[in-house]
Amino acid sequence: MKKLPKSASIPTLRRLPKYLHFLQKLQSTDEKFISATKIANEFGIEPILVRKDLSTTGIVGKPKIGFELERLIKSINEFLNWHSVQNAVIVGVGGLGKAIMGYVGFQDYGLNIVAAFDSDKTLIGKKIKDVQVFPINELPEIVKSNEATIGVITVPATSAQFICDVLVGSGIKGIWNFAPRALKVNNDVILENAQLSQSLAVLTHKMVTKNS
Amino acid sequence: MKKLPKSASIPTLRRLPKYLHFLQKLQSTDEKFISATKIANEFGIEPILVRKDLSTTGIVGKPKIGFELERLIKSINEFLNWHSVQNAVIVGVGGLGKAIMGYVGFQDYGLNIVAAFDSDKTLIGKKIKDVQVFPINELPEIVKSNEATIGVITVPATSAQFICDVLVGSGIKGIWNFAPRALKVNNDVILENAQLSQSLAVLTHKMVTKNS
Repeated sequence: MKKLPKSASIPTLRRLPKYLHFLQKLQSTDEKFISATKIANEFGIEPILVRKDLSTTGIVGKPKIGFELERLIKSINEFLNWHSVQNAVIVGVGGLGKAIMGYVGFQDYGLNIVAAFDSDKTLIGKKIKDVQVFPINELPEIVKSNEATIGVITVPATSAQFICDVLVGSGIKGIWNFAPRALKVNNDVILENAQLSQSLAVLTHKMVTKNS
Repeated sequence: MKKLPKSASIPTLRRLPKYLHFLQKLQSTDEKFISATKIANEFGIEPILVRKDLSTTGIVGKPKIGFELERLIKSINEFLNWHSVQNAVIVGVGGLGKAIMGYVGFQDYGLNIVAAFDSDKTLIGKKIKDVQVFPINELPEIVKSNEATIGVITVPATSAQFICDVLVGSGIKGIWNFAPRALKVNNDVILENAQLSQSLAVLTHKMVTKNS
């Protein structure tokens, strides 16, 4: 594996997927090169910010020409570790769980959901987009046999910490939490909260301050 | 309406809902007061950061006692504008759209989804969690008659900008975009991207750098 910088800022990590979508769109055109300024214009941000973000991935642009499109896409994908496939399991096959399982886009980002789990007996054995639903007590064995590294939590808040502990105890190294509950994990586990309420907070607060 | 500060930082806005969930949990206990240190311990962050975040909402704590629980919850809710109800419409009744419509939690945050829209004729007239699905061409009238201010976009990337333009043209002031596409809006419209891929990027990149 290529040597990676130790860390990137959260805002940079959040902007990189946006650039990537834009660059992938450009692949269907005749453009072979792209400048940081053009990317910056697309998103209404400063070119210097784009240059900083892109250089974080290790790529170096050419003066007056910019970046080779294919190389830039490869550089961002590698930096985000989206070029390799990571096996994941998802716990909680409610509305949000089903939506995530049905979102084919995640496969482009290297997220391969190999199994789903739920406590609802009527769901066990069913398949959602080719992914089978298993009872929770089979989780440890299935995580190990599939070498799954990511656990997606889409259960109600009250059971989130319990499920998190089961996942980590089974060897999961990254938790992607959608439950509206603060979770505790050991230092060797990465926890990322994808709580929609946080995004809603940014929207509603900005709407108020804009009108005051 | 209480005079609000002009703006808060995005990280602060993202932490406030987490504090709120924690504080609401405490309401079912006997605790009447809470210190910034205790909140900080719950989330493994620095107390000074929590104090800064809370003071942004306009509340002042008492030395050695901390914050009155009820007043603190009220202060955060008011700051995020979650104490008042805002009518919203959602466009795109696929898996993610249905999940969002079914997530009752948003009502606690003042998001009241009054109507859904989809181009799929088989969905028109159906109700999902008491919210009816209408054809897109009825959107402008329904937005106006309900005084809806927020538009939630859960359509595929290819139609996201078109739907965004329809929403803004109908008077929508805040766009909550779940489509993986950069959208353009006028300066007087607030755009918040809730792209799940951004959150996934933070997780997968951190997992790599942790193990390198």
